[in-house]
Amino acid sequence: MRSSRTLPRLAGWLQRRYSAQAAFLEERALATVPYSYTPPGRNHLHVPGPVNIHERVLRAMNVPGQNHRDPWFAAWWKEILEETKILYGTTQGTPFVFSGTGTGGWESALTNTLSPGDKVLTFRYGQFSHLWVDMMQRLGLDVEVHDLPWGEGASEEIVEAALRKDTGHKIKAVCVVHNETTTGVTSDIGGVRAAMDAARHPAMLMVDGVSSIGALDFRFDEWRVDVAVTGSQKALSLPTGLAMVCASKKALEAGKTAKLPRVYYSFEDQLKTNPSGNVPYTPSLMLLHGLKESLAMLREEGMANVVARHHRLAEGTRHAVEAWGLKLLCKHPRWRSDSLTVIETPAGVDSNLIVKNAYARYNLSIGVGLSQVNGKVFRIGHLGNMDELMMCSALSGAEMAMIDAGVKIKPGSGVGRAIEYWQQTSKIIPTREF
Amino acid sequence: MRSSRTLPRLAGWLQRRYSAQAAFLEERALATVPYSYTPPGRNHLHVPGPVNIHERVLRAMNVPGQNHRDPWFAAWWKEILEETKILYGTTQGTPFVFSGTGTGGWESALTNTLSPGDKVLTFRYGQFSHLWVDMMQRLGLDVEVHDLPWGEGASEEIVEAALRKDTGHKIKAVCVVHNETTTGVTSDIGGVRAAMDAARHPAMLMVDGVSSIGALDFRFDEWRVDVAVTGSQKALSLPTGLAMVCASKKALEAGKTAKLPRVYYSFEDQLKTNPSGNVPYTPSLMLLHGLKESLAMLREEGMANVVARHHRLAEGTRHAVEAWGLKLLCKHPRWRSDSLTVIETPAGVDSNLIVKNAYARYNLSIGVGLSQVNGKVFRIGHLGNMDELMMCSALSGAEMAMIDAGVKIKPGSGVGRAIEYWQQTSKIIPTREF
Amino acid sequence: MRSSRTLPRLAGWLQRRYSAQAAFLEERALATVPYSYTPPGRNHLHVPGPVNIHERVLRAMNVPGQNHRDPWFAAWWKEILEETKILYGTTQGTPFVFSGTGTGGWESALTNTLSPGDKVLTFRYGQFSHLWVDMMQRLGLDVEVHDLPWGEGASEEIVEAALRKDTGHKIKAVCVVHNETTTGVTSDIGGVRAAMDAARHPAMLMVDGVSSIGALDFRFDEWRVDVAVTGSQKALSLPTGLAMVCASKKALEAGKTAKLPRVYYSFEDQLKTNPSGNVPYTPSLMLLHGLKESLAMLREEGMANVVARHHRLAEGTRHAVEAWGLKLLCKHPRWRSDSLTVIETPAGVDSNLIVKNAYARYNLSIGVGLSQVNGKVFRIGHLGNMDELMMCSALSGAEMAMIDAGVKIKPGSGVGRAIEYWQQTSKIIPTREF
Amino acid sequence: MRSSRTLPRLAGWLQRRYSAQAAFLEERALATVPYSYTPPGRNHLHVPGPVNIHERVLRAMNVPGQNHRDPWFAAWWKEILEETKILYGTTQGTPFVFSGTGTGGWESALTNTLSPGDKVLTFRYGQFSHLWVDMMQRLGLDVEVHDLPWGEGASEEIVEAALRKDTGHKIKAVCVVHNETTTGVTSDIGGVRAAMDAARHPAMLMVDGVSSIGALDFRFDEWRVDVAVTGSQKALSLPTGLAMVCASKKALEAGKTAKLPRVYYSFEDQLKTNPSGNVPYTPSLMLLHGLKESLAMLREEGMANVVARHHRLAEGTRHAVEAWGLKLLCKHPRWRSDSLTVIETPAGVDSNLIVKNAYARYNLSIGVGLSQVNGKVFRIGHLGNMDELMMCSALSGAEMAMIDAGVKIKPGSGVGRAIEYWQQTSKIIPTREF
Repeated sequence: MRSSRTLPRLAGWLQRRYSAQAAFLEERALATVPYSYTPPGRNHLHVPGPVNIHERVLRAMNVPGQNHRDPWFAAWWKEILEETKILYGTTQGTPFVFSGTGTGGWESALTNTLSPGDKVLTFRYGQFSHLWVDMMQRLGLDVEVHDLPWGEGASEEIVEAALRKDTGHKIKAVCVVHNETTTGVTSDIGGVRAAMDAARHPAMLMVDGVSSIGALDFRFDEWRVDVAVTGSQKALSLPTGLAMVCASKKALEAGKTAKLPRVYYSFEDQLKTNPSGNVPYTPSLMLLHGLKESLAMLREEGMANVVARHHRLAEGTRHAVEAWGLKLLCKHPRWRSDSLTVIETPAGVDSNLIVKNAYARYNLSIGVGLSQVNGKVFRIGHLGNMDELMMCSALSGAEMAMIDAGVKIKPGSGVGRAIEYWQQTSKIIPTREF
Repeated sequence: MRSSRTLPRLAGWLQRRYSAQAAFLEERALATVPYSYTPPGRNHLHVPGPVNIHERVLRAMNVPGQNHRDPWFAAWWKEILEETKILYGTTQGTPFVFSGTGTGGWESALTNTLSPGDKVLTFRYGQFSHLWVDMMQRLGLDVEVHDLPWGEGASEEIVEAALRKDTGHKIKAVCVVHNETTTGVTSDIGGVRAAMDAARHPAMLMVDGVSSIGALDFRFDEWRVDVAVTGSQKALSLPTGLAMVCASKKALEAGKTAKLPRVYYSFEDQLKTNPSGNVPYTPSLMLLHGLKESLAMLREEGMANVVARHHRLAEGTRHAVEAWGLKLLCKHPRWRSDSLTVIETPAGVDSNLIVKNAYARYNLSIGVGLSQVNGKVFRIGHLGNMDELMMCSALSGAEMAMIDAGVKIKPGSGVGRAIEYWQQTSKIIPTREF
Repeated sequence: MRSSRTLPRLAGWLQRRYSAQAAFLEERALATVPYSYTPPGRNHLHVPGPVNIHERVLRAMNVPGQNHRDPWFAAWWKEILEETKILYGTTQGTPFVFSGTGTGGWESALTNTLSPGDKVLTFRYGQFSHLWVDMMQRLGLDVEVHDLPWGEGASEEIVEAALRKDTGHKIKAVCVVHNETTTGVTSDIGGVRAAMDAARHPAMLMVDGVSSIGALDFRFDEWRVDVAVTGSQKALSLPTGLAMVCASKKALEAGKTAKLPRVYYSFEDQLKTNPSGNVPYTPSLMLLHGLKESLAMLREEGMANVVARHHRLAEGTRHAVEAWGLKLLCKHPRWRSDSLTVIETPAGVDSNLIVKNAYARYNLSIGVGLSQVNGKVFRIGHLGNMDELMMCSALSGAEMAMIDAGVKIKPGSGVGRAIEYWQQTSKIIPTREF
Repeated sequence: MRSSRTLPRLAGWLQRRYSAQAAFLEERALATVPYSYTPPGRNHLHVPGPVNIHERVLRAMNVPGQNHRDPWFAAWWKEILEETKILYGTTQGTPFVFSGTGTGGWESALTNTLSPGDKVLTFRYGQFSHLWVDMMQRLGLDVEVHDLPWGEGASEEIVEAALRKDTGHKIKAVCVVHNETTTGVTSDIGGVRAAMDAARHPAMLMVDGVSSIGALDFRFDEWRVDVAVTGSQKALSLPTGLAMVCASKKALEAGKTAKLPRVYYSFEDQLKTNPSGNVPYTPSLMLLHGLKESLAMLREEGMANVVARHHRLAEGTRHAVEAWGLKLLCKHPRWRSDSLTVIETPAGVDSNLIVKNAYARYNLSIGVGLSQVNGKVFRIGHLGNMDELMMCSALSGAEMAMIDAGVKIKPGSGVGRAIEYWQQTSKIIPTREF
């Protein structure tokens, strides 16, 4: 019989049989043990990205090595690039797909269109807009930042005023984070464009759509966006690893004189190769297989339906928050995000404790408050590959974790209100008519 | 530009290029289209089997072809067989694993221990006990069936009385379905054994544990079970395809004179090969990889914890039913199943409509009522790879689908009560202490 | 720094942190270590089943749990059953798919058509025909076995003579193993049918097509086969776990009076459910997903091309054997199998040593000689998901392993001859024209 | 019966049922059909990257979405970073892992250590060294390029002479492509370091190890490399998508004054976060899971054994080339690469035709000649997840494709010579002793 005396015996056996590798194997056992317990059920992933990968997408990525110089690649790659246009709502933009992340997408947007010292106008109302500003500054741009309270979105008034004042057209670009993932605020890009038009200013409009594109209404052509940026691990519901960008003719034109150095994230290198189905360096075929399947799913659902679904999931979540008697960080209804909901905890309750309990007790992953709102809010993502019943898990788990942390709420109050709303607004899934 | 005129062009192109295969491709498109729309989110699988496969188990099965005659197989196979003993609560039984299903397991139990014309005592209180009786009869056994209302379990009184009456020991086996998946009733196998002991009768005790073993308390050795049967797609949370059986020494002894024909499901052929790590015919390596991982997960959790988890999930579900003001099909508390809950719908409401709405609107798969209770009950499984938040999805979806079908319930009433119970009884997941 | 003293520390740490589970974890480490080294590259799987699973099939099976009572199932299942007909070359047969193996298929063929004491005529010329005979005898049939040398196939002369002699038509079935996987011999089923016709005998014709159907020419309708049997892990290139059977009208008719007991492998139970897209017990969805994809691939290739491919791969292999100066176990050219090649080793060379070296040094899995030819032959499978370059690996590895074991062959002689043949007969893969 | 008239019916049905989506579905069918035929067997992938992904690595990556802010991440990420050190042969370097590619790694190496106008010394002897030079120039560096014939490696004499001449120490870095994947040439980094030492010059040494690190001998510490770069799709045998970099203390120090702009590929941002198990932006968990498993496999094999395996596979390949009577593009034996072999085709034979035939007829992917050697050479990769029998496939397929293209070689001549060499030098795989 094997007993607790096995360990010394194991040691001896290891030394004799694998002398060279024994040390490694010991270390491996040591490193593995603390993570070996994965509980039954599943991890309920409800952060605002990375999001849940659909089983169809997982299957599509389960491919052994492939050669992108084989003849099948060119047509396949061109089709993928073309198909990404549905994300942006464009027929006129030029899409790019890089191995990278949203941060790389930001860099791509800026370096391909601007020169050192160029002036840009932007807002800071959350951690991600803060980080983009940081990048602009480090790249040597002259950044006019308008700080707004966390919980508000881009101010059209400020845009218009600043641009009107800039009679010399020093401002080359207005940069806006569409959906601020820190605060659950969606700015009004159409409104920003209207403000720019009102000021009759020729600046480019650059949009961080990392947590909006593919989930929220986005109209690249109608809003005359010049560069839009997103990433694979948000509404596309893929693993992280693709930076996706769309550029207008104006942005491409600006690139011809833009002097910020760029190679990896260069548009030009892609433009020299993509039209013939080629690439300037090795593409990540596994992620592209996933992207193709994810785009096919968005097509099947229809982008208008995708947007409507996000709104419906968000509305149910907001009803739940109201039923709990809690407040959103986003105060004004016009800015409420359909990608995620950021909820303020009552005075005296550390929101981190809610997040910890959710993970530790219920295998629910929700988002902490970042930076200046850490401890004060928690975040529930409802973007990407998501449905009502998944949201019921998230709301139920949030209720339990809030009670664990001392928030006074009635069990079932929030999820019940959401259920009511979702039931009343439900439709039969296409192909499931009976 | 591609338009709706593509279809005729596609036809022409197909005929020219693939003349021989064109017809097939058309048919394939036709067959595939109606099922091509898989909605975002996930299928919420809450039937009482097949159950949700854990991601670790899916990964473990993702193996290309392998040769079971390669040297690694023998030790690996013996370890798997040995490890299955934790399911049955046995150290003395002999476990078998066949490619097959629970139905095959039934056949294995009977044909390896009995002869044509042998008398067996059993109960019929649901569709699965009915089907087992049907098998017994078709195999030529002399079956003494006691019909009980659907919603009740095995009667110890009947067992004792029937055995006492059988002074000539004609009855060779008492066969009991431990957990009747049609009705949500768990019989008391320990009680049945006590009745057999009270009658001082030497009959064998055979147990269908298809929806109990690996989920509910099972004590093969303590209850002196002679043959126990289960399948892979229930508490083990694997794909269907393995019939798992455990036999006592007495059952193996009975096999020496048992004359029912058997080859595929023969114990003897396994006993000749398994002890040396061999098999009488090709094993399903993919499913065995899954079985190994599933058993490892049960080990990590600990069987006592597994049983406790099932009870806790079931209790929450029953609290929800009570809060809805509905009744269980299982009337007596002693028989309430921790594997699944079978809920009666109010008079005038077709339970099939609830199940249809659940699937069609919320991508929730719950079980219809089978046979004589069709239209009157629906079933929610909570066995196997399951956690609280998955159950919150199931209860929430059931609420919505009931409202859709006209049941008067308050949204959130059931899931709220379950949340309350689960929060109050929650513990931190091991390795997640903070 | 971590050193070889970690082990004692690991023990202490484990005991403190996981007291209850420590023993298990130790045991697990012990059990896992000897198998932890999986070499770079891949296992080169060239036994005559299980065979290599195509990446498309692996992907298709990578599905979480599903409910076969959901509405999508019925049409899907009927389509799969219908599609299996291409394997058998039938439009008139009735196909069945069981969770099980080829052995279960044998049982199905016999028990659904025959009664205890019925006489069957069959041959024994290898391990698998031997096992089928054993099953017939254990099921209580009156078996007239004709033993033939291993390396020969079914004798049409014997069939005709035996049937002519049986003027009373006691013989109810002629049972033939089409492709004997022990010896690399393919019998001539059309010839057997002709012999039966010549004798004007009404016996049924039952065929074990486990290692032929889906790989070799098979004409269920033309040859008037009554029951044909195969399994998933051979030409279908799936994991083991499906027993596939096709029955003629005559066989189904015979079933009405056949008295051998059967439940699990019963045709009747399938016939009651399959036509409406139903099943008598839970199907293995994972394997059925694989089956669907595998059938789609056979369709795309075209069965005639599949058969031609197997012949071409086999011819190249036989050229290699000839170039090595070795002999096939199958002496007469008419019987040479296109599924596998069985090669005699020279006197004094243990064929097991070749198989051991192949696995231990080159990660090549080839088949040992079974039973009476153990040590005298080794087997190379070329059925199912297989191409020329995979066969070049097998032949190259066989050369190396033979040299390791002391066989005198010139390196490259066999694979060179095969290369010559395959190059001369190569065609461009459809859709890869350039 | 379904016939070729189904297509019009399909059209009608589609329009009625899915009016909105019909056009898309048609297009999808059109786009999918030409690529629907994936032949039986497998794609034999023998380009010098991307390489074959091991089944263990594929399994490890088959994970649904996860949250990198959950508590498990920090220790896991730190362990991965630490473990990458075995690739570089370093205990003192600081490793980085970016979502990106080798091209991004180049950018990282340059921008984190240099300022605009800084002088760098480098060589151009293939397409990849050419592209790195192009990047250096576009980033505004002052590049002293020494062009060498394609087929030669870095000249230690030139390095020493150039550095001696640079008495003012204007040259800040010597940049060398270790293994030029265009030409199959491995430069001698130890020799370059010796030349730098002989010149007593303080320039940094930067090495592109994209197709060497993890496959060939690499000694970051011993050679005092300052920045080394690799990518996931080469020796690590992962999908493309990770740029991996290692920096010396000197390089990190240089970063404090380096003025090239950098954000995405910044070392500083990683250094601020990695030590606490954090990241500056979302990591690609799927690829990191693969990286962890790939590193574990390298550990198990032992890096010295990995290097020896690559040498042995390369030697066999070179023996084959010699037996074919062909020449390597790399003329001098000191530079012959163990990662890939680049073979010149005889005058009058277009090497592209060989590559086309290999893919179109034998499903073998080998590399074309790039840029100035296009049409003149083809490339066989033997790096990463590779073994002898896979190489036998590659050599066999190359023979067939060469004969198809008109090269006069004796079938089996090359693969036979390789078989001879590999058999003579074979060892038993650890854990497979018999």
